Amino acid sequence: MLRELIIKNRTYRRFYQEFAIEHQALRELVDLARLSASAANLQPLKYMLCCEPERNALVFPHLGWAGYLKNWAGPAEGERPSAYIIILGDTEISRSFGCDHGIVAQSILLGATEKGLGGCMIGTVQRQELRKALDIPAHYEILLVLALGKPKEKVVIEHVGPKDKIEYWRDAEGVHHVPKRSLDEIIIG
Amino acid sequence: MLRELIIKNRTYRRFYQEFAIEHQALRELVDLARLSASAANLQPLKYMLCCEPERNALVFPHLGWAGYLKNWAGPAEGERPSAYIIILGDTEISRSFGCDHGIVAQSILLGATEKGLGGCMIGTVQRQELRKALDIPAHYEILLVLALGKPKEKVVIEHVGPKDKIEYWRDAEGVHHVPKRSLDEIIIG
Repeated sequence: MLRELIIKNRTYRRFYQEFAIEHQALRELVDLARLSASAANLQPLKYMLCCEPERNALVFPHLGWAGYLKNWAGPAEGERPSAYIIILGDTEISRSFGCDHGIVAQSILLGATEKGLGGCMIGTVQRQELRKALDIPAHYEILLVLALGKPKEKVVIEHVGPKDKIEYWRDAEGVHHVPKRSLDEIIIG
Repeated sequence: MLRELIIKNRTYRRFYQEFAIEHQALRELVDLARLSASAANLQPLKYMLCCEPERNALVFPHLGWAGYLKNWAGPAEGERPSAYIIILGDTEISRSFGCDHGIVAQSILLGATEKGLGGCMIGTVQRQELRKALDIPAHYEILLVLALGKPKEKVVIEHVGPKDKIEYWRDAEGVHHVPKRSLDEIIIG
């Protein structure tokens, strides 16, 4: 059932790095994106896939991780993602991408969850450096990087009131806590 | 399986208008949105729900339908959506909403599909008029309107090459055809 899949699909940032994700699995995930909605059916998004250690090492240094965890610079060697899907906007097709990348990112992450994987949608990207590292042509806008792997951390949802903080935190046992607003707070009429 | 759900989740624009969608069903769909990812976990999105004929009639006139179907102004009375979820960005929480509304729209539409419903993500909205009609406070940005109902049309995917047109069309039998780019076209590396 979708609800279970959505609940299982938490944002994960630490992985069993040695767990390999095959290129074919990434293609299957992008196929879910391909079959998802696109504004005016323009389908301006393109994808780059990374699942080899050498290529992954070109991507990792240019990603920002967990802004609220001030004393954590990101996953250590051994706990890094096994794969990435880089979502690009093809400016030769459209100049604006609306929220198309959000639609497809959700399809891909739900598909990854179903495969027993997990990941993180990363918008904090050193775009110029990543473009150079992967030789991404200038007419592609870098929209999002999806990091994927076999999750190596526990993530739990916390329920908060309208006045509470929404910053996530990690406890002494390494469990990651994510405060979520209530349904009554977000439905306003 | 998710792939079947994504394939079933086509964009529908004609519905059995008399088929009622309960308020509780809309709340369950928004709960899927609530449990989905949000950039920096800010959760700046708010939702307005409509499922009563009188209230639906306030929303419908302000929506744009199927830009490529030049001779079709939108669903006729009797084939209009049974419900709407209006996705708002709360500017008191954030000034920018990234692609959060795409993420949640996909969760909601997949959830609707699982319930035997279908719908359409509508970005072409007369925002000022809709704001007035529903009395939406000024600090909420209108991001998307999700139209929902029990689909009354058949939608099929067509496969196209890189040089082909992506405009959807409706044939003499009323079947809606949607060209989709191939996997090999959208994966560029």
